[in-house]
Amino acid sequence: MTDAERWRELGQQLRVDSIRSTAVTGSGHPTSSMSAADLMAVLMSKYLHYDFDAPDDPHNDHLVFSKGHASPLLYSMYRAAGAITEEELLTFRVFGSRLQGHPTPAIPWVDVATGSLGQGLPYGVGIALAGKKLDRLTYRVWVLCGDSEIAEGSMWEAFEHAAFYELDNLTAIIDVNRLGQRGPTMHGWDLGSYADRARAFGWHVIELDGHDVDAIDHAYAEALATSGQPTVLIAKTLKGRGVKEVEDQLGWHGKALDNPEAAIEELGGVRNIVVDVPKPGRSAEPHRFDTNDDVQLPTWEEGEEVATRRAYGDALAALGSLRGDVVALDGEVNNSTFAEIFAKAHPDRYFEMYIAEQQMVATAVGLQVRNWVPFASSFAAFFSRAYDFIRMAAISQANIRLCGSHAGVSIGEDGPSQMALEDLAMIRAVHGSTVLYPSDPNQTAKLVAEMADREGVVFMRTTRAATPVIYGADEEFPIGGSRVLRDGDDIAIVGAGITLHEALKAADQLAGEGISARVIDLYSVKPVDGEALRAAAEATGGRMLTVEDHWPEGGIGDAVLEALSEGEFPVRLVRLAVREMPGSGKPAELLAAAGIDAEHIAEAARSLVGAAVGAR
Amino acid sequence: MTDAERWRELGQQLRVDSIRSTAVTGSGHPTSSMSAADLMAVLMSKYLHYDFDAPDDPHNDHLVFSKGHASPLLYSMYRAAGAITEEELLTFRVFGSRLQGHPTPAIPWVDVATGSLGQGLPYGVGIALAGKKLDRLTYRVWVLCGDSEIAEGSMWEAFEHAAFYELDNLTAIIDVNRLGQRGPTMHGWDLGSYADRARAFGWHVIELDGHDVDAIDHAYAEALATSGQPTVLIAKTLKGRGVKEVEDQLGWHGKALDNPEAAIEELGGVRNIVVDVPKPGRSAEPHRFDTNDDVQLPTWEEGEEVATRRAYGDALAALGSLRGDVVALDGEVNNSTFAEIFAKAHPDRYFEMYIAEQQMVATAVGLQVRNWVPFASSFAAFFSRAYDFIRMAAISQANIRLCGSHAGVSIGEDGPSQMALEDLAMIRAVHGSTVLYPSDPNQTAKLVAEMADREGVVFMRTTRAATPVIYGADEEFPIGGSRVLRDGDDIAIVGAGITLHEALKAADQLAGEGISARVIDLYSVKPVDGEALRAAAEATGGRMLTVEDHWPEGGIGDAVLEALSEGEFPVRLVRLAVREMPGSGKPAELLAAAGIDAEHIAEAARSLVGAAVGAR
Repeated sequence: MTDAERWRELGQQLRVDSIRSTAVTGSGHPTSSMSAADLMAVLMSKYLHYDFDAPDDPHNDHLVFSKGHASPLLYSMYRAAGAITEEELLTFRVFGSRLQGHPTPAIPWVDVATGSLGQGLPYGVGIALAGKKLDRLTYRVWVLCGDSEIAEGSMWEAFEHAAFYELDNLTAIIDVNRLGQRGPTMHGWDLGSYADRARAFGWHVIELDGHDVDAIDHAYAEALATSGQPTVLIAKTLKGRGVKEVEDQLGWHGKALDNPEAAIEELGGVRNIVVDVPKPGRSAEPHRFDTNDDVQLPTWEEGEEVATRRAYGDALAALGSLRGDVVALDGEVNNSTFAEIFAKAHPDRYFEMYIAEQQMVATAVGLQVRNWVPFASSFAAFFSRAYDFIRMAAISQANIRLCGSHAGVSIGEDGPSQMALEDLAMIRAVHGSTVLYPSDPNQTAKLVAEMADREGVVFMRTTRAATPVIYGADEEFPIGGSRVLRDGDDIAIVGAGITLHEALKAADQLAGEGISARVIDLYSVKPVDGEALRAAAEATGGRMLTVEDHWPEGGIGDAVLEALSEGEFPVRLVRLAVREMPGSGKPAELLAAAGIDAEHIAEAARSLVGAAVGAR
Repeated sequence: MTDAERWRELGQQLRVDSIRSTAVTGSGHPTSSMSAADLMAVLMSKYLHYDFDAPDDPHNDHLVFSKGHASPLLYSMYRAAGAITEEELLTFRVFGSRLQGHPTPAIPWVDVATGSLGQGLPYGVGIALAGKKLDRLTYRVWVLCGDSEIAEGSMWEAFEHAAFYELDNLTAIIDVNRLGQRGPTMHGWDLGSYADRARAFGWHVIELDGHDVDAIDHAYAEALATSGQPTVLIAKTLKGRGVKEVEDQLGWHGKALDNPEAAIEELGGVRNIVVDVPKPGRSAEPHRFDTNDDVQLPTWEEGEEVATRRAYGDALAALGSLRGDVVALDGEVNNSTFAEIFAKAHPDRYFEMYIAEQQMVATAVGLQVRNWVPFASSFAAFFSRAYDFIRMAAISQANIRLCGSHAGVSIGEDGPSQMALEDLAMIRAVHGSTVLYPSDPNQTAKLVAEMADREGVVFMRTTRAATPVIYGADEEFPIGGSRVLRDGDDIAIVGAGITLHEALKAADQLAGEGISARVIDLYSVKPVDGEALRAAAEATGGRMLTVEDHWPEGGIGDAVLEALSEGEFPVRLVRLAVREMPGSGKPAELLAAAGIDAEHIAEAARSLVGAAVGAR
């Protein structure tokens, strides 16, 4: 058999297996798998270098299915590679199987979860960037894309950044089967429309027939031979290729075939080809950056006023000296987030992501695939732009660290578009996430160091304004902890970040009036220190006040309510939060207008203490 | 004076006023305003048709500052148009002034809030679509864009959709001043890089010197003369143009000038030109679509099983017959969300947004600028892609309706990437939002009709699975209400959507065991029916159970905790929610695995009743 014959046979096997696997539960995407089968058959036979017995080998290529719904094809490739058995293939979409409806890293050969379209290519950019600029190895990144998903703006962020960073180790393969879920795509089989766009964005472009294995072979070879720019294969294909009933037909997206047996026969029956997937070369070791153990985390003295965002930048730069695996990204605001301090100290490990927050988070996810430790920063408000990527990062079991500056009304004159008032809610509602909100530079530095070793999506919220140092340089702030800064049992006031400073002022006022207020620094919003909160409720007869520079929903108030709901005592909790749309103004004016400054805290505390204990 | 001389003088005035206004609080973006001053001087003198005395006139053009930080320029234009006084201009960024740091519709001539970059052009696409396809008027939409923000993928969604819908009434003006906040942009003054991209995306492209008023004049004329495609002006400019200290200099983004007086002198001093902005033509009336008052909202009989997503589609189509102002959008999944029923019934009022959720939400915001009543649908999970747009919609005071289908683990085999488990948290944390979660088709239909008249961001969560009809067709479901479906005072179980059906089954089980469970349908998650919840807590001695197909944070459990925190009685609330990352499986298997099916509800209820009242 010639290579071409073998590839064609393998393509048919991948189609047959896609049909067989989706027949098990009667669900899944066989037709979207069948269109790309020939493209993948040639790839895995000749161009993909991968050791399925050693998925963590740094020399492996990376294959990302951006069109994650073509998972039957991917899993059929695993079977063809001898990585899974036929028996396991037939557990597709069955409860408990790792072969889920869309790929996730529950499977050792999957780097990133896909299934939210428009994400795989951005992740691929991140992995390719790791290969080229950090690992400095020759592995390649192959991303299979759907044509429908090209409509996502995130794909064009990826096109832009891949060309900018000259990622010639990245190859995108667009499976132009012209049919989306609901009907024809915007551009149908107009390959030129994709080609023009990709070329304008700086890519090397190859148009081809996605069912002509020789053309596919030549295209991959051309991609390998292209340097200085990424390559995209734009392949004309037929959805459901090879089975008349469904081939190029509307109405067959995401549906198992009605007559799988007949379809399998039409495709020439079940095959058992085992492909000897090329192994990666293993000559070089991954690059490692030098460290400097003499560097210490920065510290600040009592009496200083320092913004936590500034402390973030200083601490991150120091951490970058101590650890060669730390990498920083920023979305064109590094002089505001202070990631610029890291950028200057470690230019080889800083990547400017420009104003493209989706690509920024995707790059972080891609870098951590190769065990780098990314910290990505922007204004906290603008992480809302990347929420789908953050949500998916949790499904990817990714370890990424995000720092959002300029939180809340306390930023002042810039107005509400720049004020994060929903970020705590947004990130708390991510599975396995950590949410930190320091109020002091020494605390910030300690937490930045802890973030590096923390798993999952780890978010730090920083404050624009300079605030007084309140902690000593040697104090520790374990994630999941809290701090009692004033003792008291008439009422407990819970704040973090900017509002903690207001709470301290309020407590001092109240003390002068004979009201003893416990002030709790809830620097770890998730996980939250439920024990300390319940102890406070018990001590104060349940009289508690939360104060946050955030909308009332989903933030500190809710985190405290959740913790207290596990207690056995009555609670009278008042949640001070931003309840009206703010405008511009001085920080103090806006804190007052929102009712979250010291005056309003003291007033609420008085009224709560009065109400709960009767006239004093 | 020639036109050109007048325009140049006006440009200088706009620069001077940008400097003066930012000098007031010593904050803002004068240099970003100065680069675009000539472009705007010519526009407002000759091409923009706008009646500042009648901002609601349907014939007015629309001017959107996608680079919202150039607000000093916009407000200086208002002064030059005689719309605001010099005195008001000098309240820029002062607390209480409507002239905020970034434009918002607190100002009558601002359609949409900007300031989160990459959003103005997508909104402009929505407004232009309204003009061309709905209002069918000749007004034009002008969008001033920054060069930095072209890196946002959302801009390319806008480029794509504007060309696809042949929006020749839309003109984008890119102010290529080559400097971002932190440093040079990716492409600097390489106008060709922008031109190639825009041309590949199907736009008519004009490159020009953005300080040459004659060239600007010709470019606008060419835009007017272009039909069948939108036009983009790619204008080479100097940031801080006209003031040597800052012109084309790094480090001057978002900063008031150090020496405003000297700068004003360098620019030739204060001017008081008043521009007679051309008024719009008023020949035609806005198009109105026919209605059919004989149509009724659909109803379903007890005994039927119907998915709420299906009821959404049926109800929306009926609403579209009853109201000519209702418009539907969908992100290439209208056969899953059932927006396809509307699309078939009212093809002129349906717009396919393909897989571009940011542009979909932006289009909704743009359409409502012209008082259309948009309903946009997708899988609920994928609204996370557009969260920044939803957040900004609240600042825009926009009335938009979003419907998210396929919520939670109950979707089954597709797996976690398709399961919305954070949508309630995400939308609850939007200012002024409404969150609805029906469990029955009759209820869905009534709520869909209410959504049309509701202000703000209004979100409905629908369920994939068919569930039994539990309400009569004549029942009413006011937003902010709830329903008690089973009476009882041993415990209250609060659910909505899929979990309400599980709660009902659990209550029936418990009733057989002598435990009387009150079951509350919390179909209005925000605003929430605090009174009913507090009454339930009082009746049950605070023994309450919330059950939701959502992460534990920010959803129904937190909404109930918030409401109960306003009560005066002890609460022992258990929140059943999805706490581990789900995989694929049958809906019933996944509900069970998450601990939110009838069995687990009953078990939790038993243990809560037992714990609270001692051994029974």
